[in-house]
Amino acid sequence: MSSIREEALALHKNHAGKVEVISKVAVDNARMLSLAYTPGVAEPCKEIAQNPDNVYTYTAKGNLVAVVTDGTAVLGLGDIGPQAALPVMEGKAVLFKSFAGVDAFPICVDSKDPEEIIRVVKCLAPTFGGINLEDISAPRCFEIEKRLKEELDIPVFHDDQHGTAIVVLAGLINALKLIKKPLDEIKLVVNGSGSAGIAITKLLMDAGLRNVIMCDIEGVIHKDADWLNTAQREMAQVTNLQGLKGTLADALRGADVFIGVSAAGVLKKEMVCTMNDKPIVFAMANPVPEILPDEAREAGAYIVATGRSDFPNQINNVLAFPGIFRGALDVRAKEISNKMKLAAAFAIAELIDEADLRPDYIIPEPFDLRVAPAVAGAVAKAALEEGIAREEVEPDEIIQKTKALVAKANRLNR
Amino acid sequence: MSSIREEALALHKNHAGKVEVISKVAVDNARMLSLAYTPGVAEPCKEIAQNPDNVYTYTAKGNLVAVVTDGTAVLGLGDIGPQAALPVMEGKAVLFKSFAGVDAFPICVDSKDPEEIIRVVKCLAPTFGGINLEDISAPRCFEIEKRLKEELDIPVFHDDQHGTAIVVLAGLINALKLIKKPLDEIKLVVNGSGSAGIAITKLLMDAGLRNVIMCDIEGVIHKDADWLNTAQREMAQVTNLQGLKGTLADALRGADVFIGVSAAGVLKKEMVCTMNDKPIVFAMANPVPEILPDEAREAGAYIVATGRSDFPNQINNVLAFPGIFRGALDVRAKEISNKMKLAAAFAIAELIDEADLRPDYIIPEPFDLRVAPAVAGAVAKAALEEGIAREEVEPDEIIQKTKALVAKANRLNR
Repeated sequence: MSSIREEALALHKNHAGKVEVISKVAVDNARMLSLAYTPGVAEPCKEIAQNPDNVYTYTAKGNLVAVVTDGTAVLGLGDIGPQAALPVMEGKAVLFKSFAGVDAFPICVDSKDPEEIIRVVKCLAPTFGGINLEDISAPRCFEIEKRLKEELDIPVFHDDQHGTAIVVLAGLINALKLIKKPLDEIKLVVNGSGSAGIAITKLLMDAGLRNVIMCDIEGVIHKDADWLNTAQREMAQVTNLQGLKGTLADALRGADVFIGVSAAGVLKKEMVCTMNDKPIVFAMANPVPEILPDEAREAGAYIVATGRSDFPNQINNVLAFPGIFRGALDVRAKEISNKMKLAAAFAIAELIDEADLRPDYIIPEPFDLRVAPAVAGAVAKAALEEGIAREEVEPDEIIQKTKALVAKANRLNR
Repeated sequence: MSSIREEALALHKNHAGKVEVISKVAVDNARMLSLAYTPGVAEPCKEIAQNPDNVYTYTAKGNLVAVVTDGTAVLGLGDIGPQAALPVMEGKAVLFKSFAGVDAFPICVDSKDPEEIIRVVKCLAPTFGGINLEDISAPRCFEIEKRLKEELDIPVFHDDQHGTAIVVLAGLINALKLIKKPLDEIKLVVNGSGSAGIAITKLLMDAGLRNVIMCDIEGVIHKDADWLNTAQREMAQVTNLQGLKGTLADALRGADVFIGVSAAGVLKKEMVCTMNDKPIVFAMANPVPEILPDEAREAGAYIVATGRSDFPNQINNVLAFPGIFRGALDVRAKEISNKMKLAAAFAIAELIDEADLRPDYIIPEPFDLRVAPAVAGAVAKAALEEGIAREEVEPDEIIQKTKALVAKANRLNR
């Protein structure tokens, strides 16, 4: 890790951060100055004043996403504040650009009051075509996302919840192909009932999952548990329908799939041994997973995925969010709906031919450049079908455009 | 104008706006992903969490300016709202980058409540190294700027006030060299007592001017006038010390200099005829000045400046704000002080050798590439001398760096 530490600090220091704002037009003579600034710039202003929709024609808004945080739940570092969160938000902006040609800009809000954060984001919305919420602690993130989705007419997406859920679903779709079980017949245990665990459970249920038990540090979540927060209490109504009480070990007996968004080492080999045939383990705690892949396999796990790049089957959000916003922006979707999320997951999963699926290859690599264009096209198609797109664009055109934008972004990076 | 209109609309449409956010680093392999994003990005986060000053080392903050508006006083278009203001703010960002290598980002705030605008900007401050306020109507702009200057530790600068004032002072310094009168002996009339008129008057008084009369549409501003707003009432205490009452025509009798930030055509030839020998006329109403240069000269004006690029002596803010922020950012000045503003004005003026000064060449052209580096160096020097800089950098080094940044920005533009 010391080499990573030194290299990462050097990278950030040598470039003074990672994002840069450039001009798309060369203003190096009086004529260009008079077009890009006064007096010419008054013309697009007047067009937008007459018809607000024109803001998408004459400004960068339509390709611009705000990466918004309050710095309260940054990586595994916790509440380090908005300034210390800035490298992560710049990093996210870099990934948006590199993977899907989306312009993204870090907005680190110096407030922990959900009402104030909502107000600030609403005040900034004129400049942006979409809002990516990032590293905001639960349960505040739920209220902030819910309200912004209701009150804004541009996509609002909390990546820690939905990005993770989409990539987990993509991996699970392919894992289940390998063990030949349909999603609606498996038994799943989700360990960790923070924002990611809840979002994963909800999306999987939207995809057809029925039998799921959620656990947290106190044990199995059930209707009578007295330690649940509001979000967990809602989940207790729709999960664990048999009303099991007990520990993670109790929940796992006979389960087909374990999904962990919890803490290092909490999944023991003995527990994996009690799962159903060919158990599937997604151990996504970072940087140390709930169980190491070797241990899990020793205990009989058939497929293991983690959040780490040094093991096979990395569940990496970068497979989802760039293409999702690309597709949503291109058709000017009003929101990122559940159908769009499901479409993204299936698009990611389907990039691997069934003939190529293996227990150690259920999900594309982060640098599989087919991913973002495929996701963008699928998301756009879903938005168009659902009638929440405000611009008619052929999904195929979006796929081609995304490829071109990624190529251009990566040339600019050099 | 129809050709400018069509070309300006085409320019904005073809590029979908004028700003783009790019990555400074190429993230195209797993190693780079692990340095620019997780897990490596945690390292600069931790460094900043330990010592907030490190945000300047590891992020883009130190070179990043927010161009903030509420869209209430956009160009001559008035209160067109935050979305319609976006092309102007993008244009400003383009000029920051093209003229001084400053990364600038448009922030169009969807609120007209000064308290809320102040709160939003304060919430965003962690991301930015400086705040450029733009096109916010008076008197709201005064309160917003004053409060932000008091409550933030980064430079806050309302360009419509101070940028204009600095360039006017630069032009006036050179104009007075030609007519061989010192600033503290001239009689000046400022017509227009909005934010620009007041800022010009204040800066000129800081530079040594003593005899000044301000006028507005109601006539001469004097202590007993009952139509003054708070800002005008303050100016009535320090200007027009002889207590003149009457009209602009009355004020101009015997004046050496007219400065107009008012409305088309309000300065009549008959009024210019009553001014002192070799009168100086800065007629800066846009797009149609208070008097056209030909008319002014016919009436005896010796030197005429306007805001327009198609006449000689253009008073253009682009001579000031890029270099001012460049210098302030490079020494991490806590604010942009009056001494820094004065230094900027003298630096602009001194770029023209006395031997080269002519009535139609008192101010450098906007594309005189010596300007921003000279201003940056002078502003940094002033901040260092005043003790409000937090970083020791040689002004000469800043001049060289600015030249290199401008060259790089203009390469990137292609």
